[in-house]
Amino acid sequence: MQRALSVTRDANFPDWYQDVVKQADLAEVSPTRGCMIMKPWGYGIWELIQAELDRQIKETGHDNCYFPLLIPMSFFAQEAEHVDGFAKEMAVVTHHRLKSVDGALVPDPDAKLEEPLIIRPTSETIIGDAFQRWIRSYRDLPLLINQWANVFRWEMRTRLFLRTAEFLWQEGHTAHADEADAMAETRRMLEVYRRFVLDFLAMPVIAGEKSENERFPGAVHTYSIEAMMQDGKALQAGTSHYLGTNFAEAQNIRYQDREGGLTLCHTTSWGVSTRLIGGVIMTHGDDDGLRLPPAIAPRQIVIVPMLRDKPEDEAVLAYADALAAELTQHHAFGGKLRVLVDRKPIKSAEKRWIWVRRGVPVLIELGARDAAGGQISYIRRDQLREGDKVKTHFAERGAFVAGIEALIADIQAALLAEAQARLDGNIRSDIETFEQLAEHFGPDEGEGGAFKGWVRVGWSRPTGDGLAAVEERLKALKLTIRNAPLDQASALGRCVFTGEPALEEILIARAY
Amino acid sequence: MQRALSVTRDANFPDWYQDVVKQADLAEVSPTRGCMIMKPWGYGIWELIQAELDRQIKETGHDNCYFPLLIPMSFFAQEAEHVDGFAKEMAVVTHHRLKSVDGALVPDPDAKLEEPLIIRPTSETIIGDAFQRWIRSYRDLPLLINQWANVFRWEMRTRLFLRTAEFLWQEGHTAHADEADAMAETRRMLEVYRRFVLDFLAMPVIAGEKSENERFPGAVHTYSIEAMMQDGKALQAGTSHYLGTNFAEAQNIRYQDREGGLTLCHTTSWGVSTRLIGGVIMTHGDDDGLRLPPAIAPRQIVIVPMLRDKPEDEAVLAYADALAAELTQHHAFGGKLRVLVDRKPIKSAEKRWIWVRRGVPVLIELGARDAAGGQISYIRRDQLREGDKVKTHFAERGAFVAGIEALIADIQAALLAEAQARLDGNIRSDIETFEQLAEHFGPDEGEGGAFKGWVRVGWSRPTGDGLAAVEERLKALKLTIRNAPLDQASALGRCVFTGEPALEEILIARAY
Repeated sequence: MQRALSVTRDANFPDWYQDVVKQADLAEVSPTRGCMIMKPWGYGIWELIQAELDRQIKETGHDNCYFPLLIPMSFFAQEAEHVDGFAKEMAVVTHHRLKSVDGALVPDPDAKLEEPLIIRPTSETIIGDAFQRWIRSYRDLPLLINQWANVFRWEMRTRLFLRTAEFLWQEGHTAHADEADAMAETRRMLEVYRRFVLDFLAMPVIAGEKSENERFPGAVHTYSIEAMMQDGKALQAGTSHYLGTNFAEAQNIRYQDREGGLTLCHTTSWGVSTRLIGGVIMTHGDDDGLRLPPAIAPRQIVIVPMLRDKPEDEAVLAYADALAAELTQHHAFGGKLRVLVDRKPIKSAEKRWIWVRRGVPVLIELGARDAAGGQISYIRRDQLREGDKVKTHFAERGAFVAGIEALIADIQAALLAEAQARLDGNIRSDIETFEQLAEHFGPDEGEGGAFKGWVRVGWSRPTGDGLAAVEERLKALKLTIRNAPLDQASALGRCVFTGEPALEEILIARAY
Repeated sequence: MQRALSVTRDANFPDWYQDVVKQADLAEVSPTRGCMIMKPWGYGIWELIQAELDRQIKETGHDNCYFPLLIPMSFFAQEAEHVDGFAKEMAVVTHHRLKSVDGALVPDPDAKLEEPLIIRPTSETIIGDAFQRWIRSYRDLPLLINQWANVFRWEMRTRLFLRTAEFLWQEGHTAHADEADAMAETRRMLEVYRRFVLDFLAMPVIAGEKSENERFPGAVHTYSIEAMMQDGKALQAGTSHYLGTNFAEAQNIRYQDREGGLTLCHTTSWGVSTRLIGGVIMTHGDDDGLRLPPAIAPRQIVIVPMLRDKPEDEAVLAYADALAAELTQHHAFGGKLRVLVDRKPIKSAEKRWIWVRRGVPVLIELGARDAAGGQISYIRRDQLREGDKVKTHFAERGAFVAGIEALIADIQAALLAEAQARLDGNIRSDIETFEQLAEHFGPDEGEGGAFKGWVRVGWSRPTGDGLAAVEERLKALKLTIRNAPLDQASALGRCVFTGEPALEEILIARAY
């Protein structure tokens, strides 16, 4: 069977991923090491993610601000765990001028900074510094801030969207009067993320708490949402941290309480990034390219007029334009439908495959016969083929337009159902010993390895050396602890690592 | 008379500016030298500017992309004039890791980059590099790209919004088959800017071409829009550049034309930035703070319920909420009205002045009597006082709601009319000699100096040494050439500098 991509998921999942990114024209590697160029179709997805998530972040009471890109180096020394976690991978600005020496550019030695500046890997330190100035009394709390920004972490092995040195994200930062309020915020935003990726990205996830060794540097509790990719691996799709008073203490973020005393604030931070787009690709893509949930498709419907350089062309174009105008009056996900008539001067057969690879949910191909007969021929990208062949649906124009909102909703629901079934059907919970765990996952077969899914096992929460030993054993199998799901069973068995009575269950998987 | 600010425009314009930025809670200086923190009210204005301008940029056929923050140093060596213009003020990344030495953090000497990376001061070079890969044939042209991004230029003297080391902007970058098409694009986007600041920022400007000495480094023609501030100085509010084939040649951006030959592209770039917010402040602010055009006010209407800790409070709050709900159903500038009921637990008299200083266009203060009688008491921020006193308007609720869209439109129009009268009334065009010019402007009185406005004089376009001499003479008077307005007189006199017949008229002014 002829597929639109050169490599299938089964043959080589990582190569398939790269091919989708390229063939769907989402992004490309840039000449700056580790960074990507997001192209219009990829960036358009990000704009839609941003618009809806921004709406929800504001609806939950947060205000957007913008803080500096560069952070003085000394700020990172304030919170000890934080600097340990980040100091190893930051871009350091040391000069503020170039100069020409023998015709070549060099950093001007006379323009060396007294204190180096760091490109933000995350903004706790510089935002905390502002909080310390802004917060005076309990009346100023909670302080609920969000920022949309680019951040930079030096990464050795990068992969478009999934792990790049520079990426785009939002980072929420909040300060509260006490632990209860800060914990409620941490969990509230985790739930906003869980519902958002479910409803808009059609990506079901499991929300839970990270184990001690996987916490954000400086956090007391870190929560994550974890999604299952089509190769069975886990993708951490968002995190929410309760920072306790660690940063407040390091940065002197205090407030005058109702009794007049000075009390430390409890702070939180939470973020999602352009990594979500990598998750969408690996959740919904197929061997013909990307399949986009309509909620985040820059165009939900593309109309390709099949032109033949003949007089009938005019009627076909008029029919296409009228149809587009009519469809645009309909709504989905709180906005008007996004419809494009593709008039580019290239062959319509070529256009079909361009839009299939890009994953446009509904592709309408209109010929002279359709125009004359008031018919519509269309392809549903989520159900592209019947057997080996592309399946074209036919409808009477009025009925098609009347049913378009239902069709869009149905495509979104179908993609979600597929992903939900994958997640629900591939978490083993019958594993009781480490030997069984090792047997299930077997030796690491590398990136194109067989589908293993996740396992859910008992966990006695070892710490210190005990935890380090577990990490070593897992590492040998290329496994990691994903999280302890919020939704826990009432009866617990024993820990697969220690044999002690389990305190909770955790998810174990290979991961991105 | 008691004013809401501590300093008036007349007493000290620069101090007044700083006070507005602070009292309207727009932004503050950050601990990172030269950078600012945009606070919710200031960033909210930027979000509205961004949303509408983005809509117009897309409507004119441009797609958004995202390119890397860091640009390899060697890219700047490609276009000679470009590097001369920017190399003096760039942030240079030289290391990718910190290390702890004797308890202090330092850039790790083992993590020195082979080639330094530059934080983009503008993105012609890295986007041009992509264009060179993306453009194959005439069918790929025009290529119309825009990017919303942060950029960084090391600045010695900074002022919030007007000149900061890091700022936010959009930068359009386009490639065309020939000069005519590229010039049309350059002028089209200049006109988009002119209309946008007129219609949304209520800021009238004069669009024109920059003189040779004021061109963007590497450009063939640079156009600008110039706005007149309340101290008579000019603010360059946006620029649009025709880059000819300079960058195309340096970066090998060529296309196969219809005849099969390889031809250089003609490129353009154009941008506006957070500087626009500084322009809004200096165009519309008064001695009581900011006055915001409703089109860019994060809240167009704020309702302050006057609560007295009495049982009537409940009725006042219910009345305020019902009114807000009703007003939100009305529209302005293509969106629903943005209305806030301010429930903060502080005194309502304090709230009045908070919102006056922030410049909210309509401030409604509701008491128990209003609630009982179905009345509205409100303040128009654009016409705050009658004599020395704050003027409160009264209306019957139904009539007020029915007239709200007209009221919002009227406030926008009134602010524009005021600014337009200032611009129209303060450009002298009767100056014929350099002596008259010097006499008009007089010695530089520093930043709080008297209002001088602009002059429009004949210009013979001297070049080389002649132009350098003019620059020197102007510099001694702290003057600059702003632009040669697109709208030129048919009869021209003589050049005030050379005495030769004028080829065009130019605007001369002190400037930000």
